[in-house]
Amino acid sequence: MSCKGKAYILSIGNELLIGKIINTNASWLAQRLTLLGYCVERIIALPDRVEDIVEEFQKALTHADIVLSTGGLGPTPDDITNIALAQALGRELEVNPEALRIVQEKYAKRGYPMTPEREKMAKLPRGAKPLPNPVGTAPGILVETDSRLIIVLPGVPAEMEAIFSEHVEPLLRSRGKPHFYQEKMVRIRGVPEADLTPILRRALKIDERAYVKSHPRGLEAGAPVVEIHIYASSSSEEEAKAIVERVEQFLVEEVRKTFGDSAKISILS
Amino acid sequence: MSCKGKAYILSIGNELLIGKIINTNASWLAQRLTLLGYCVERIIALPDRVEDIVEEFQKALTHADIVLSTGGLGPTPDDITNIALAQALGRELEVNPEALRIVQEKYAKRGYPMTPEREKMAKLPRGAKPLPNPVGTAPGILVETDSRLIIVLPGVPAEMEAIFSEHVEPLLRSRGKPHFYQEKMVRIRGVPEADLTPILRRALKIDERAYVKSHPRGLEAGAPVVEIHIYASSSSEEEAKAIVERVEQFLVEEVRKTFGDSAKISILS
Repeated sequence: MSCKGKAYILSIGNELLIGKIINTNASWLAQRLTLLGYCVERIIALPDRVEDIVEEFQKALTHADIVLSTGGLGPTPDDITNIALAQALGRELEVNPEALRIVQEKYAKRGYPMTPEREKMAKLPRGAKPLPNPVGTAPGILVETDSRLIIVLPGVPAEMEAIFSEHVEPLLRSRGKPHFYQEKMVRIRGVPEADLTPILRRALKIDERAYVKSHPRGLEAGAPVVEIHIYASSSSEEEAKAIVERVEQFLVEEVRKTFGDSAKISILS
Repeated sequence: MSCKGKAYILSIGNELLIGKIINTNASWLAQRLTLLGYCVERIIALPDRVEDIVEEFQKALTHADIVLSTGGLGPTPDDITNIALAQALGRELEVNPEALRIVQEKYAKRGYPMTPEREKMAKLPRGAKPLPNPVGTAPGILVETDSRLIIVLPGVPAEMEAIFSEHVEPLLRSRGKPHFYQEKMVRIRGVPEADLTPILRRALKIDERAYVKSHPRGLEAGAPVVEIHIYASSSSEEEAKAIVERVEQFLVEEVRKTFGDSAKISILS
């Protein structure tokens, strides 16, 4: 796979590690980043502990062009992502005037007074920018360091998605050259996954910008079903599409040639 | 939180990193491990790339008592977890006679011949044991090194769950002293999350074996709803229960004292 840049996703929150919450935020973000042309290299769920968050931000920054985190931006004592991020960057944590204005406005609208806990949500690492939250209170945080980008989002899915769609996606689109992702699914009934291996091995070699992965889907009326997912990305949309189609055609032809009528093939997009 | 041991979960598969699949395997495993008394410290999704898998197994083994992985055990070329695990441990990858018998029996039953791709699923790092798969073909892999345990499971949820329930859970129960996890949820309507902060801060200090975390749930008929999740684990079930109840009582009393009738409190689970 070629890509516009490498991304790490940090999912902060004990609720993920005790299995109370399924990490839908990460898959939502991974899909969006993939469609924007980024290669997501890791999704890491970690606890609400300052030293762990510092460690994972620092590690991620040595490997990725873009580090996105979710969780830990609220007003309660377990919300410590801003504190940990400042430590990870070796920067002061300070009240950001723009963030303070955003938080103040939110509470004023609902008739609530400012408190130290609410002011906490306006504290950002020095040099960071707040990302307005169209749904909730805590603003997201944007930091640019050298050529890297750090994007810190809340854990509440509706807030995370709104900030990403309104502020992060346009920013990522504006950076670097556009990159296009394309995919297709070939479904084969009647051939066990292991027997497709020689064909899959050759399909993987057709183009290094493509990836081919098979997923066994159990039996259907006694016959094994395998879904083969093909995807590619490229700086040209037509090219990405052409790569995927080339691999698809190869798979369909080879499966027909090798297994004849015993293989039922369907193409899902 | 006290715990019986630290656990890392490695979720292997490009489909997680492109957001095609939501990582329900990890939350299922995290919940089971938590109930068994383990602290899950990381859940890491990583690509189907040997060097990445080797790196994450090695890192996990320096931090955790138990490392569980899912994915990459099938017959196709992207299934490389056994190869990477052998590299990570610096051990030979070899056909395990017991694993071979398991794989052969599975295919014989369905009338399929053995092939090199099928034999691949019987290759384990030297000294490892196969974990029979009651649902699918590829056996899981169990490795004990020093005081650490590595458990490698398939990515297909039904297979992963069956191997865990039949083979891994009894093993983990038999290791070390039993450890018990307890939890409760307190739901508060009518108080904004930020105003609960001073109470939450004190609740967190009641017992270091307990953890208290608030989750804002938006508005309900115009009033904010916050769910406070309390959990604790201990070597005695009664003690874990008592810790959770102590924190619960403290929260209920303090919220009543501070906010009176404007707070509607309910206890869930």
